[in-house]
Amino acid sequence: MRRSPSLAVDIIILIGNKLVLIKRENEPFKDCFAIPGGFVEYGETVETAAIREAKEETGLDVKNLSFFRVYSDPDRDPRGHTISIVFNGEGKGIPKAGDDARELYLFDLDKIPDNLAFDHNKIIQDFFEKYKVG
Amino acid sequence: MRRSPSLAVDIIILIGNKLVLIKRENEPFKDCFAIPGGFVEYGETVETAAIREAKEETGLDVKNLSFFRVYSDPDRDPRGHTISIVFNGEGKGIPKAGDDARELYLFDLDKIPDNLAFDHNKIIQDFFEKYKVG
Repeated sequence: MRRSPSLAVDIIILIGNKLVLIKRENEPFKDCFAIPGGFVEYGETVETAAIREAKEETGLDVKNLSFFRVYSDPDRDPRGHTISIVFNGEGKGIPKAGDDARELYLFDLDKIPDNLAFDHNKIIQDFFEKYKVG
Repeated sequence: MRRSPSLAVDIIILIGNKLVLIKRENEPFKDCFAIPGGFVEYGETVETAAIREAKEETGLDVKNLSFFRVYSDPDRDPRGHTISIVFNGEGKGIPKAGDDARELYLFDLDKIPDNLAFDHNKIIQDFFEKYKVG
């Protein structure tokens, strides 16, 4: 069978002027901060996957979901080639860590840690540059 | 093993004021017109895949490659759930059908056939709406 890249979604969630990051429960990058996200399941759209993963990991409903960018560098995930479709949106509801997220944090946009998991620092930096925030 | 969606790229190639379509050599949608495209290979970025597939199917080098949109409806491909990352760009060089393309055609933007393969009519329509062409 043809080996294919895996497909994930990640979601840049803002609550007011704060960014939602999780602390990862599992390897790789266990205990590191990361943008919420996960793998796209067979039979769901990427938008559905983004909303599902955000809910599972943060308890939040994401409103005004918007496509941001695709990240597909083969080396971005040590488990193997994983292409991420990145969305952004507004978090609504009560934040609560769940699933692959051990803890959940809200960060001021000028105080984002510089040692995020995967290429998430680059993703956040690209996002801030595009939208002139942070 | 977890069943995952497949990941493809499709490329809206313009040469001047004309759109490049291939006639498909293979099922599904054999003999139908389609936007050039194909599956992303393990280890290549989606941009590399788009340029490679365009070259293989049309002989063209794609310049000014730009991300357009992601299409991920589970029913868009009868072979199974296939998510397509769609790019657009300018075709340079001598057009020549190859690989999965049996023939290659250049269409005036107001004369695109309405029975393209997969959801390619919708993709073209969305593209024309966004860029006010066609």
